[in-house]
Amino acid sequence: MSETIPLVTRLAQKDEQKWLAALREKLPIYNVKSFTELDRAERSAARVAICANPDPAHIAALPNLVWLQSLWSGVERLVAELPASSPAIIRLRDPQLAASMAEAVLAGVLYLHRHMPAYLRQQQNRIWQGIDQPNAGQRKIGILGLGDMGAAAARLLLAPGFAVAGWSRSPKNIEGIKCLHGDDGLGLITASSDILVILLPLTKATRALVDSDFLAHMPPGAGIINFGRGPIIDSAALLAALESGHVSHALLDVFEREPLPAGSPLWSHPGITIWPHIAAVTSIDTASKIAAENINTFLRDGTIPEAVSRSRGY
Amino acid sequence: MSETIPLVTRLAQKDEQKWLAALREKLPIYNVKSFTELDRAERSAARVAICANPDPAHIAALPNLVWLQSLWSGVERLVAELPASSPAIIRLRDPQLAASMAEAVLAGVLYLHRHMPAYLRQQQNRIWQGIDQPNAGQRKIGILGLGDMGAAAARLLLAPGFAVAGWSRSPKNIEGIKCLHGDDGLGLITASSDILVILLPLTKATRALVDSDFLAHMPPGAGIINFGRGPIIDSAALLAALESGHVSHALLDVFEREPLPAGSPLWSHPGITIWPHIAAVTSIDTASKIAAENINTFLRDGTIPEAVSRSRGY
Repeated sequence: MSETIPLVTRLAQKDEQKWLAALREKLPIYNVKSFTELDRAERSAARVAICANPDPAHIAALPNLVWLQSLWSGVERLVAELPASSPAIIRLRDPQLAASMAEAVLAGVLYLHRHMPAYLRQQQNRIWQGIDQPNAGQRKIGILGLGDMGAAAARLLLAPGFAVAGWSRSPKNIEGIKCLHGDDGLGLITASSDILVILLPLTKATRALVDSDFLAHMPPGAGIINFGRGPIIDSAALLAALESGHVSHALLDVFEREPLPAGSPLWSHPGITIWPHIAAVTSIDTASKIAAENINTFLRDGTIPEAVSRSRGY
Repeated sequence: MSETIPLVTRLAQKDEQKWLAALREKLPIYNVKSFTELDRAERSAARVAICANPDPAHIAALPNLVWLQSLWSGVERLVAELPASSPAIIRLRDPQLAASMAEAVLAGVLYLHRHMPAYLRQQQNRIWQGIDQPNAGQRKIGILGLGDMGAAAARLLLAPGFAVAGWSRSPKNIEGIKCLHGDDGLGLITASSDILVILLPLTKATRALVDSDFLAHMPPGAGIINFGRGPIIDSAALLAALESGHVSHALLDVFEREPLPAGSPLWSHPGITIWPHIAAVTSIDTASKIAAENINTFLRDGTIPEAVSRSRGY
């Protein structure tokens, strides 16, 4: 009898069916099955499961799981909801997702660099007026977070000639990028970035990292792009900094609550551009392929991919 | 006595003074002087002049000119206003200007590729809704015009992985770019470009090139970027194609009349983004350096840079 691999999600049934179809295509010799359809023997036998926003009770009902493959890159909810004794959590690391994020960062940085929000406002008022435009080489871009996505974004920003710095918790080395780390590094990159791009995971250390004190240390007129997680920015502090003009514009793809509630003041602020969490959309095709590769390797030789650190939070 | 080099412009005096200062700094051993300040002997002696939108009568008043250095890249007005017997016209060919144009093209292509106009409209209506997003590799970008600017733009679009084709009058060969030419090539690139970027000079052959027939041959939902010259597009045909939805969005930086008149229907059309001719702004610093190099070379050994072809128009 072939190994059963549970898919554990709280997705709409239509979406779960799409994932099931893609995973079955990529794991043809195993029995990929929705958690809700498992019998008792299958629950007990499962050694690895695939999940997307799973009900923690369902994970607890798989007593012999060794590890969990997330179909998403962000795992803060899994980390928060599953007890520390839970099986190892593996984040999705998808080069296609990193490329898509890098593309989104390039689009967002050029949007701010090229004064596109200001030209859109001028258009509404039929104003024909050029705005001073520094060269890319004179524009300092800071990336917070140098994981797969941050590193890909930093490298792509070199193509049009931007001056790129990046910050990460631990030291990194990326050719052409000024790599900073630690608390001192964070102070440096904050104070010197004309456009700051947030690609951090949400952890205890990053929640409300961008508060009024942080914003005050940015250069006057700086732009902000948040493609990480909403709660990393204190929205009230950001609105105040936009009101004072200290921050010129913010491009936000992620929010404390998603979908962004219709009553949020963020929707209508002229200094804010809103994207509906589309900077890097997981591709069912590539994500199921990567999950399948990880599972095939494990079932062949027992190798478990690098797991999320519960203490670090990612 | 050092050679006098006239600067012939119809710029505002303040702007002409900026150019004079920059050119004098870069041509310290010559006598760079505004046309209006030349005496009769200086007019007669001038062998080379620098111009930006010159009065044709002023050019005619320099009887011994061998060539004219334009400070601008677009020379259609010079070609139209100066008689065929006038001195050779040299366009500004500035690598910095080409880099700036390439950056603008990348910004514009990403703006359309990433559905930014649609997300801005959704934001106005507080709508949270993702829109299907093809990968860059699945997005076909066509560049009309493969001069310095078009070639630089085409190359830069390869960085995020776009599928790039380019079209020019005569055959070209650029690594990684599908290069097309001639009438057949124009038909091919028109029919296959999801986003079409116009970087052509304005000539008899390109005026109203993009008319209703041309637009009808584009793929449904295509985007258009015009960073070349306004009259290359028939505005009425473009508005009709936007109304029908056959063209999804147009980013326009150049217009039949500039500044765009306040009464133009282009200002308020939701399918049009307007830039005030800022895609690639001539830098006084680099342009004056290039003009100075050309003039230094000529006065040292008589070399005249490649001139504009009066019949071709650029």
